[in-house]
Amino acid sequence: MNSSAVTVVEYLLRRLASLGVRHLFGVPGDYNLAMLDTVLAHPDIEWVGTANELGAAYAADGYARTVGFGALLTTFGVGELSAINGVAGSYAEYVPLVHVTVGPAEAAEHRGAVVHHTAGDGDYDRFARAHEQVTCAQAVLRRDNAAAEIDRVLAAAVREKRPCYLRLPSDVASALVGPPTGSLPDSSDVDEVSLAAFTDVARDRLATATTVTVLADFLVDRFQARDELAELLAAGGFPYATLSMGKTVVGEGNPQFLGVYSGAFSDPRTRVAVDEADLLIRAGVLLADTTSGGFSQGFDVQSGIDLGPQTATVDGKRFDRIPLAAALAALTELVHGREAVSLAVSPMEVPRGDGPLTQDQLWDIVAASAVRPTTTVLAEQGTSFFGVCTRRFPDGARFIGQPLWGSIGYTLPALLGAQLADTSRRCLLLIGDGSAQQTIQELGTIARHKLTPVIVLVNNNGYTVERAIHGERACYNDIATWDWPAVPAALGAKDALTLQARTANELREALAEAERVTDRLVFIEAHTGMDDVPELLGRIAEGVQVRNSGGK
Amino acid sequence: MNSSAVTVVEYLLRRLASLGVRHLFGVPGDYNLAMLDTVLAHPDIEWVGTANELGAAYAADGYARTVGFGALLTTFGVGELSAINGVAGSYAEYVPLVHVTVGPAEAAEHRGAVVHHTAGDGDYDRFARAHEQVTCAQAVLRRDNAAAEIDRVLAAAVREKRPCYLRLPSDVASALVGPPTGSLPDSSDVDEVSLAAFTDVARDRLATATTVTVLADFLVDRFQARDELAELLAAGGFPYATLSMGKTVVGEGNPQFLGVYSGAFSDPRTRVAVDEADLLIRAGVLLADTTSGGFSQGFDVQSGIDLGPQTATVDGKRFDRIPLAAALAALTELVHGREAVSLAVSPMEVPRGDGPLTQDQLWDIVAASAVRPTTTVLAEQGTSFFGVCTRRFPDGARFIGQPLWGSIGYTLPALLGAQLADTSRRCLLLIGDGSAQQTIQELGTIARHKLTPVIVLVNNNGYTVERAIHGERACYNDIATWDWPAVPAALGAKDALTLQARTANELREALAEAERVTDRLVFIEAHTGMDDVPELLGRIAEGVQVRNSGGK
Repeated sequence: MNSSAVTVVEYLLRRLASLGVRHLFGVPGDYNLAMLDTVLAHPDIEWVGTANELGAAYAADGYARTVGFGALLTTFGVGELSAINGVAGSYAEYVPLVHVTVGPAEAAEHRGAVVHHTAGDGDYDRFARAHEQVTCAQAVLRRDNAAAEIDRVLAAAVREKRPCYLRLPSDVASALVGPPTGSLPDSSDVDEVSLAAFTDVARDRLATATTVTVLADFLVDRFQARDELAELLAAGGFPYATLSMGKTVVGEGNPQFLGVYSGAFSDPRTRVAVDEADLLIRAGVLLADTTSGGFSQGFDVQSGIDLGPQTATVDGKRFDRIPLAAALAALTELVHGREAVSLAVSPMEVPRGDGPLTQDQLWDIVAASAVRPTTTVLAEQGTSFFGVCTRRFPDGARFIGQPLWGSIGYTLPALLGAQLADTSRRCLLLIGDGSAQQTIQELGTIARHKLTPVIVLVNNNGYTVERAIHGERACYNDIATWDWPAVPAALGAKDALTLQARTANELREALAEAERVTDRLVFIEAHTGMDDVPELLGRIAEGVQVRNSGGK
Repeated sequence: MNSSAVTVVEYLLRRLASLGVRHLFGVPGDYNLAMLDTVLAHPDIEWVGTANELGAAYAADGYARTVGFGALLTTFGVGELSAINGVAGSYAEYVPLVHVTVGPAEAAEHRGAVVHHTAGDGDYDRFARAHEQVTCAQAVLRRDNAAAEIDRVLAAAVREKRPCYLRLPSDVASALVGPPTGSLPDSSDVDEVSLAAFTDVARDRLATATTVTVLADFLVDRFQARDELAELLAAGGFPYATLSMGKTVVGEGNPQFLGVYSGAFSDPRTRVAVDEADLLIRAGVLLADTTSGGFSQGFDVQSGIDLGPQTATVDGKRFDRIPLAAALAALTELVHGREAVSLAVSPMEVPRGDGPLTQDQLWDIVAASAVRPTTTVLAEQGTSFFGVCTRRFPDGARFIGQPLWGSIGYTLPALLGAQLADTSRRCLLLIGDGSAQQTIQELGTIARHKLTPVIVLVNNNGYTVERAIHGERACYNDIATWDWPAVPAALGAKDALTLQARTANELREALAEAERVTDRLVFIEAHTGMDDVPELLGRIAEGVQVRNSGGK
């Protein structure tokens, strides 16, 4: 061991710092306390203790969606399993992060000791095996392989844009290893032969296309091809749409923007432009039931140009080892100088009125009055997501939702992560009452870090998204009645500005006040009818109902 | 199919009802909504919607500890993984229950469709595989095997006293099967030859023993041998102790009761009686680090009579297929008519005073003033558990803790389950502020069901149990500062009686008030010093610290 030897934990923290991680989320437990001393002493990484581990996982996910990589630390067994649903969401939605857990010392493990947080049977690997199901790489670190295994596992997460898992026995955490050398293995290799072949075929295909439309989705964000996509759109002048999961991967202020595509439930102009294009270029698209209007897309998924994370396809002919960004850049070279389309944009009407606030009004008002170029909108999977995703945002605004994994309660802790990751942007959280009850304790964590986001709590008396699918008046869609305006102060946000909105005009005024008050958390309770749903959600809900009963 | 065919869900509910399940805990999700209609229509089973799935799992566990079997229902992926830490705790601590999850219809599964709550890759079995790690039996039900698989899996849970897992595709849930016939397979077979051999050896061992002590633990409760243990103690007149995990498996008012045994950290009289007995009879004992004073027991685990769930051992000689209850009954026959010991019991002093409340005062006052024969005490793993477990309870009082799994936040939702399971007993919850923040939302569920337990919230400004182990003043042991007296009303318990106690006298008065006010939830915030820990915890914490650093 040379004189610059570091502990395994220090090694790991340096690697995380090199990936842009500045905040580590988690909950202390006795096995990880010594590791936390190293975290506190680290110059670049701040510890963010959350109220529970699921909150930490969601926060790390929101953080990773903002800066590119996230990290959470839990304790063995109880802590790691509490977080696993959040990690699974990161897996499903391609969010790279590391879940670090610290367990009993190796001596206890070798004896199979019945220590706390085990299943009492000497099998210490149960929870690592559970994590095999929801992470792309895993390791239990040992003294003789810790550094190599850290590098292997982190590199896999970076390459695959998925979470990974590391367990450190508490004594291995403090063992000494050589310091990190070099960078983590890079993985954006381009197969130049494959790329050239793709380019030839794409050139021919573009030459004969009478109309071209681009459909972009969230994998453009995850595989870091936003700039290349913007360049293709600028060069080709193509009209483009995004799926809801990819909302804001390109700016929505551009006159080429068609809106959000949701299969047959799209705005007619958007639907026609996507479904009837002579050539549809798909960039980073994953068609899920909730984002494709229940698989009601009108285009042929076997034809057109389809650019995946590492594979490009032209009319079904597949070219491997071409990263998404490289494929987009190649297409850009082929289309330079085309004339840009300019689509008519109807000016957004901001609703007014003193009648009971409707969902239609709510999302129009939010999009027009509360979303700015420096806003990051987090929309909970429910009326919030389906309501706001169809509204046009100004260029620069960012959007975070979780329509594939769809774990309710996700966005409130994700807000914590996204807001800490970039304090130059103000986060706007849109969340229903049923979802907020799932993870409400992280409101206290947000307040503890003196963060100043805007939260719109949509109070519609229960699980409205489910009422739309089944059981409109069934008691299982009811929830406990909370005194929402009292919640922030009770849970630690005693300086929060708390407002109420029961009409369009009250909501406009509340959001205007939120825009003025930037030094405090603003919490707005907006009341809507318990059966009132955005139009898109209503149509998607019908499809879900049919499929769940076993129909198509 | 005969005319009395029932749906798979109805079949399952009938089997659950036959196991004593009257409440099903969970969170609705679109895949399980149709199943919930069947639950609502069921005459014997009530739906209890919780704020999140971890709360449902903990509640089902607290329920099962009270009535013998529990059940929770979640939705695919997001719901089931949110609950898995609770299920793992039931696994570690031998609590039988079933985790039912409803997933996408078979048609979607066979196509590998990218539907919500999947990982987006067509692999629908990830979450069942995760559950293999924390349940004793699992099944994904199909039309042609649903009834048989339900029976197989439930029988395993009943036999092994562990959780089991069932996934129902949404259309399989509504498929028709024949109604249940007969009972679930029974498993308490006794090997009479083995029992006779055990009895012979035990008779000889007892004949030569000059002093006999009985040490009982939680497996006596789980394997339903409480009555048999009480009979042995009455017949033999032996002095007895329990481990903390088995507190109240026998009444503590009996003059034979030595107290709670914690290895070297036990009260001297208890320690000597257990460690130095000529014959120690152990009934349902599992020695964990947190319950054995860090494995500091002074007796030889290879000698004496050790009665496990299905196996009896005499001085290391093992006899299989003897259920715990049968072994206890056999011993009872051997010891009839011995004279009972009568140990001196020092009267409990109830502290008074107007100085700052100490932990020592707190637990003395709680045990003396708030624990009655019809009280079920739930003590959170932290100062509450280690503080109250050493205090003597009156006969009849019950105790619930989770010292092996030790998942903080467990007891608040477990209270929901335990209180619903038996409304003739009043639950008393003892929980610290850090733990309560983990799962606070179920306070609203408790209020929604108009339950009237007493909650003592020990506010000591953070994770005091961890300060005792490591990082006494480290910020990772701090938590968000909540306005605790405002919490119950904010989260839906608007009728709760909320009290404060900063001194011994205030706590006595608050508990007296709680005893008078039986028609409302009573919430007492008790303030203790942030470093003040019960003596037992202080000693255990030292051992944990040494072991985590890799020492013995």
